[in-house]
Amino acid sequence: MAVRALVFDVFGTLVDWRTGVAEAFRSSGVDGDPAELADDWRGRYIPILAEVNDQKRPWGNFDELHHATLAALLNERDLDASAETRSRLVAKWHALDPWPDVKDGLEQLRAHHVVATLSNGHVAMLVDLARHGDLRFDCVLSAELARAYKPDPAVYLTAARLLALDPAEVMLVAAHPWDLKAARRAGLRSALVRRPLEYGPDTRARDDPDADYVVGDLHELAARLRV
Amino acid sequence: MAVRALVFDVFGTLVDWRTGVAEAFRSSGVDGDPAELADDWRGRYIPILAEVNDQKRPWGNFDELHHATLAALLNERDLDASAETRSRLVAKWHALDPWPDVKDGLEQLRAHHVVATLSNGHVAMLVDLARHGDLRFDCVLSAELARAYKPDPAVYLTAARLLALDPAEVMLVAAHPWDLKAARRAGLRSALVRRPLEYGPDTRARDDPDADYVVGDLHELAARLRV
Repeated sequence: MAVRALVFDVFGTLVDWRTGVAEAFRSSGVDGDPAELADDWRGRYIPILAEVNDQKRPWGNFDELHHATLAALLNERDLDASAETRSRLVAKWHALDPWPDVKDGLEQLRAHHVVATLSNGHVAMLVDLARHGDLRFDCVLSAELARAYKPDPAVYLTAARLLALDPAEVMLVAAHPWDLKAARRAGLRSALVRRPLEYGPDTRARDDPDADYVVGDLHELAARLRV
Repeated sequence: MAVRALVFDVFGTLVDWRTGVAEAFRSSGVDGDPAELADDWRGRYIPILAEVNDQKRPWGNFDELHHATLAALLNERDLDASAETRSRLVAKWHALDPWPDVKDGLEQLRAHHVVATLSNGHVAMLVDLARHGDLRFDCVLSAELARAYKPDPAVYLTAARLLALDPAEVMLVAAHPWDLKAARRAGLRSALVRRPLEYGPDTRARDDPDADYVVGDLHELAARLRV
């Protein structure tokens, strides 16, 4: 079955959250190494999503979850920040720069495929990120539309249903093997895009031997899909 | 409260369904005046949506509803058409040309506002229409996401919720007073765009004295919003 639509993870895959969030910490006056604070905050993301998926926590959008994880981070470090500072930090996740290949790469991929987001971020946040980076999608799909977070299969299946496609006609493009693995379990195809700088200059790019493609950027993905 | 997002009705407001569907009838071999067949088919749209909203009919997307209304039309006229012809006619609603001001007008409006669809058409159909006309939206919102059809207030309120806006920050742009009236009832703002050719050359443009704006095209709307 031919791939008709490409759905993209956003944080880490299309946008560089670490640089932007570290910058926001730097100008926030919160004590500590900005990049390390960014990593700590991001590290609290998977556990809190699992709480929602396990129904140990009511549904909350990414702003609400970011406020909760920021409060926990500050609390554990015995730091304080005003409501305004917290809101500015949470808002930064709506205005992160894309990796250099993304704007043109999406445009190139749109020539032959439907191109959509498929992020755990909520719709309004993804709209802000797309406008900030001038990224063009054919539509914005989000975990919010399934009221469950990735890796819950409902998220991937909701995307295929809304695109009126068989799951096997949809390919998830992500930098994270856990996301790709869950997409495959739901019947989607998968492509890993390596983002070796996601966690800073000293980290290693991930690999995924089960992905249909492993590529260095979106231009390489476009070339591989055209074969 | 300032208007932050513009949400657009699609059939009649952004795309010229009548010319496209009449063309499809013309090349289908179905007996009858193509434009009159198009009008008859379109006329069956509001009643069948009401059946869904009144729960007299299970949820169906626009392709399913178009198949049902086409079958009724052919049956009443004692006409027949092959499954392939019917599918081609139903598919035509995914490939309708926009009115001449739409592509550039949306781009102009995107400079200062979030721009989204808000159509009774399903997401996949709206994606096809946007790609066909090279129309750029910040996101594709549809009645499908509320599992109810306009004029049900849930459709308008779901759009505001997904955009994370107060209903009063969202303006519906449509060519149809019934749609604008329902949007206002849900708390949205409203703008009527006149499409005097929607039902052919001899019809009159509608009016709506309660709309915030009544405009001739999207460029005029952009000018009015900038005042």
